[in-house]
Amino acid sequence: MFNLENCLIFVVFLGAVLALIYALVTAKKVMKFSEGTDLMKKIAGSIRKGANAYLKRQYTIVSIFFAAMFIILIVMAAFNLLTWFVPFAFVTGGFFSGLSGFIGMKIATYANSRTANACQEGLNRGLRVAFSAGSVMGFTVVGLGLLDISLWFMLLKFAFHLEAAQISSAMLTFGMGASSMALFARVGGGIFTKAADVGADLVGKVEAGIPEDDPRNPAVIADNVGDNVGDVAGMGADLYESYVGSIISASALGIAAYNGNIRAMLLPMLMAAIGIFCSIFGTFLVRTKEGASQKNLLGALSRGTNFSAIIIAVIALPIVFFLLGKESLGLYFAIIAGLLAGVLIGKSTEYYTSETFNPTKKLAEKSETGSATTIIGGLSLGMLSTAMPIIIISICVLAAYFLSGGSQNANAGLYGIALAAVGMLSTLGITLATDAYGPVADNAGGIAEMAGLDPEVRKRTDALDSLGNTTAATGKGFAIGSAALTALALMASYIDKVSGIEGGKEAISNLSLMNPTVLIGLFVGACLPFVFAALTMDSVGKAAQSVVLEVRRQLKEINGLMDGKAEPDYASCVDLCTKSSLREMVVPTVVAIVVPVVVGLVLGCAGVVGMLAGATVSGFLIAIFMSNSGGAWDNAKKYIEGGNHGGKGSDQHKAAVVGDTVGDPFKDTSGPAINILIKLLSMVSIVFAALVVNFSIF
Amino acid sequence: MFNLENCLIFVVFLGAVLALIYALVTAKKVMKFSEGTDLMKKIAGSIRKGANAYLKRQYTIVSIFFAAMFIILIVMAAFNLLTWFVPFAFVTGGFFSGLSGFIGMKIATYANSRTANACQEGLNRGLRVAFSAGSVMGFTVVGLGLLDISLWFMLLKFAFHLEAAQISSAMLTFGMGASSMALFARVGGGIFTKAADVGADLVGKVEAGIPEDDPRNPAVIADNVGDNVGDVAGMGADLYESYVGSIISASALGIAAYNGNIRAMLLPMLMAAIGIFCSIFGTFLVRTKEGASQKNLLGALSRGTNFSAIIIAVIALPIVFFLLGKESLGLYFAIIAGLLAGVLIGKSTEYYTSETFNPTKKLAEKSETGSATTIIGGLSLGMLSTAMPIIIISICVLAAYFLSGGSQNANAGLYGIALAAVGMLSTLGITLATDAYGPVADNAGGIAEMAGLDPEVRKRTDALDSLGNTTAATGKGFAIGSAALTALALMASYIDKVSGIEGGKEAISNLSLMNPTVLIGLFVGACLPFVFAALTMDSVGKAAQSVVLEVRRQLKEINGLMDGKAEPDYASCVDLCTKSSLREMVVPTVVAIVVPVVVGLVLGCAGVVGMLAGATVSGFLIAIFMSNSGGAWDNAKKYIEGGNHGGKGSDQHKAAVVGDTVGDPFKDTSGPAINILIKLLSMVSIVFAALVVNFSIF
Repeated sequence: MFNLENCLIFVVFLGAVLALIYALVTAKKVMKFSEGTDLMKKIAGSIRKGANAYLKRQYTIVSIFFAAMFIILIVMAAFNLLTWFVPFAFVTGGFFSGLSGFIGMKIATYANSRTANACQEGLNRGLRVAFSAGSVMGFTVVGLGLLDISLWFMLLKFAFHLEAAQISSAMLTFGMGASSMALFARVGGGIFTKAADVGADLVGKVEAGIPEDDPRNPAVIADNVGDNVGDVAGMGADLYESYVGSIISASALGIAAYNGNIRAMLLPMLMAAIGIFCSIFGTFLVRTKEGASQKNLLGALSRGTNFSAIIIAVIALPIVFFLLGKESLGLYFAIIAGLLAGVLIGKSTEYYTSETFNPTKKLAEKSETGSATTIIGGLSLGMLSTAMPIIIISICVLAAYFLSGGSQNANAGLYGIALAAVGMLSTLGITLATDAYGPVADNAGGIAEMAGLDPEVRKRTDALDSLGNTTAATGKGFAIGSAALTALALMASYIDKVSGIEGGKEAISNLSLMNPTVLIGLFVGACLPFVFAALTMDSVGKAAQSVVLEVRRQLKEINGLMDGKAEPDYASCVDLCTKSSLREMVVPTVVAIVVPVVVGLVLGCAGVVGMLAGATVSGFLIAIFMSNSGGAWDNAKKYIEGGNHGGKGSDQHKAAVVGDTVGDPFKDTSGPAINILIKLLSMVSIVFAALVVNFSIF
Repeated sequence: MFNLENCLIFVVFLGAVLALIYALVTAKKVMKFSEGTDLMKKIAGSIRKGANAYLKRQYTIVSIFFAAMFIILIVMAAFNLLTWFVPFAFVTGGFFSGLSGFIGMKIATYANSRTANACQEGLNRGLRVAFSAGSVMGFTVVGLGLLDISLWFMLLKFAFHLEAAQISSAMLTFGMGASSMALFARVGGGIFTKAADVGADLVGKVEAGIPEDDPRNPAVIADNVGDNVGDVAGMGADLYESYVGSIISASALGIAAYNGNIRAMLLPMLMAAIGIFCSIFGTFLVRTKEGASQKNLLGALSRGTNFSAIIIAVIALPIVFFLLGKESLGLYFAIIAGLLAGVLIGKSTEYYTSETFNPTKKLAEKSETGSATTIIGGLSLGMLSTAMPIIIISICVLAAYFLSGGSQNANAGLYGIALAAVGMLSTLGITLATDAYGPVADNAGGIAEMAGLDPEVRKRTDALDSLGNTTAATGKGFAIGSAALTALALMASYIDKVSGIEGGKEAISNLSLMNPTVLIGLFVGACLPFVFAALTMDSVGKAAQSVVLEVRRQLKEINGLMDGKAEPDYASCVDLCTKSSLREMVVPTVVAIVVPVVVGLVLGCAGVVGMLAGATVSGFLIAIFMSNSGGAWDNAKKYIEGGNHGGKGSDQHKAAVVGDTVGDPFKDTSGPAINILIKLLSMVSIVFAALVVNFSIF
């Protein structure tokens, strides 16, 4: 009972607990700050109420889905198509993923007014509150993720006495709960936030001519609620899924590559635990002097993330050596390749979307000839920007595969690819903190505006917010890069899973591109991200339309609203966004769950592998295309607002606003949701593998 | 010497000659019609002069490229990496492809004023002139294509006494000339026509407020020249390439599937020849009564194409039986599957882009909330519209593969897929005629407007033109569907080709999706259509920008231009479009030729196969997405101009114009060029196969 492996799993468990304690302590620290004036409290209260109401209803709908799936999985288990653990693990995965989003959002809605208030005292104080809130989210995600994994591991090993291979095979099926929850949260939240944003802008800014975040705009609270339910709760559930998915797929491949050696299974978990220690260490470095420039602020954040990354890069070497010996040191380089690829994709995102570089500047220039050329320019920028990440990920995959010994042992190579994803996500605690503080600062700015604080305060929250855009670019690089690597690892895990099923080996014996079922699977899979992007964009359009009508109605019917004598009915806009986003969230998610099962039943397992490859490749491309087009349009607009090409209110600005509006669902709804989609497809395929092996047509 | 096979190849040769004779006779018939008034002659003369000048310079640039490639190929032949026929066949392929475009454009520029003049007498007469011009183009393309194939076949067989397998292997490499020429013509012509169109519209219609095709607009001649060099010459070269590509890849796969049986090689050629006879027959059915409604007109065109398709479907059965016996009758159903898939993809295109159906009507409705929602709506419509063609092509591929006996003999299955493409293109003579008459009618409308003919004439040319949009949708279905099938067939041919090279069998022994070089190839290949679309869209933007500046300059500097007292300098706009489109055409084409060689040298043959699969899948999706988005925006605008949602000049109309402008490079430049791209990649890979086998890193 008391051997090295058992100690190690305990270290992993401790890492998870430490992360959660750190999150709790940080949350308490945040709560100690003052919320500011009564008006600020009231505004923050409305936002919080709206966000809670949304999440409550979202969870109600999602529960129905989970209950239905639970029954389906129980039936499948009864027919011996699954182990009995799966239905329960499905629920825990979904629960923890949802909880990550919930806690992150909770703290964000408490921190927004506190950040605004702290910014009255100074920039550094504001940064500390916002960043602390981001940290709570970051460490909750990694803590809960690792807790779920380590608890299940201990349960299966110590209570049910399963072998390592059985444990990894069972745990592989757990990801589906987290992935479905993540997709619901991302799609629902993404639709909410963009419907409110577009609705508020189209009527408030464009038609009524009132500034952004003006309290007279009936959709202004909904807009701020949207930042929390979309950018915070959605992102939390999303990254929980990435984190857990990368670890369990690496564990499963480790078992396959190292003939059941449990140490190969523990390596990714241990990397994640060490990552938590390093990340906590890194957060202590994030602070800045008063009167700091934007550059100083960015420096403070970069110091934290870079330092964490460097320590983990150093510590990983002895860990790999210690666990798997000298001959497996190539795995170390796979981890480093993943870390590097994440950073480089982030840099590429920054290059294409930041107004300090040429592409976005040139895009702003295109506004001189109107909105059509702005749109064409943004679309072509996004399409062109796919080349660099493709090259980076290609080199990373090749390096991870061959350095891990893939040429002798293919499984070892695939394990290397999975470890690259784990390496990339190992410092998620702190990268997520630098990412999640952005929406908090954004909200703080809204509250400062609505509460009529000194314009200097708004300037400070804007400085924090604009910085958030740059760190968000890095965060996106990690999210997209890790999604591609994890999807590839899950594809390999799927094949491994199928091979273990009776009759499965024959079902996947021919994965050649010349097998027509593989080819057709490839076509169908590649089509899914297109369809998914179309559905989610349409949903945003429909939901925004209803907000537009409601805002117009209130502006017309409520007397004295425009003079500030009467208050708009904020709640009705929040309610409308909630209803329409929840209604619209169901179809895309159900499509993502049903299609892989149908493809499997028709085309068989080889067709499923083709589908997964097609979806990963085209999903990766479309996610980058949509994120970068959207980001560039957003920043081109900001660049013009900064006084270039005619500045605010000019025709060029109007053209740029059209670009930004098109970019909204691109970068905040469809693009990020595709990252989850490509992993959910694999997760569903893994869970339904036995069904497909037994009942497929081809 | 005098056996059945030799007779059959003579039949093929005869089919080619017959097509050319029919084209010549039809051309003479067209020339007999009167060109109309002196003013009409003058306008038509300017258009013709501009088009000729463009083509002359295009061919000059292309010749340099061909000369350089010729030398490279000669060197490769000297090092035994190619047979000596390839360099010469490369040149003939390019020459005939260019010639197809040239002849088609020549007759179109003679037929435009004649169509306008004939429309003065009546609709039926106008239809006959325009359709005859389209027929010249259609039959020139198929005639020259089959001539090139049959002449080379006879040369290799009778003069060099090669075996069937050697002939097919040599002929497979011939497609690269046609494909490169096609890409140059499509990209160059596509940029020209959209730069002129966008330039003329942005300044003329939007800024100066003069109607379309108004003689005071300095870019109006360039716009009409663009229709000829892009929609006619570009399309001619494009379909020449598809036609030849599908036949030679089917021939090569036939040899592989039927162990060198020359009859399997002759079947696709014979199908093509029979298709010519049926098409000629079909053209006789295209005529309509005077005072015919648009429905009657469409009926007349459909009668011709449907009839040709039905005869070929009937005749194919005895031909397959006669050539390959009862046990190969499954191939017949593969041919039928291809024919049907082409029709169905065309129907799906029509559904998504025609204003008589819901999607485009709903898109028009989105103009109510401005240009941003119009753009989002069009993009999501295009993305969603990929699903149906994917399902159609998937069923077609599966059916063609398994009905041809792919489960016993994989090569027979692949041969079936290639025959499906041949079946789809067998009636190209007449489908192309119904497609190519559109730009002629469009030009005729321009001439009627500029020459100040009776508005009734313009109405008639508009009726012809609008009909052309519907038939063009069908044509697009065939172009996209056949491109995907041919690309798959070429991929199979590539593998076949590599297997025949010393050391090649090992190089492609592992085409599994779990081979990392295949996976990376897939990523890189899928990225290429994105990059290619970005480059071509950018090119249109840049070229249009220069036209905008020139038109603005002329409107400002030429006194009395707006009052009709002075003439604009049309030639300078034509010259500008020529220069910029030719400059911009080089980079995308060179990228398409260099990338497969580089990918091959780095990743090896397995990587190349991955790349081809990735490019085919993502290219198919993007081509459909861009074509359908563009088509829907165009028709939504026309729907509004028809008096819906505020009609012409309303804010809704302005929003729709933005959509249409974005759609222009989508549907007429980037989208169609991608069809060629995916085949050119295979062609280049096939030619450089020996180089890659000998010198690749992996």
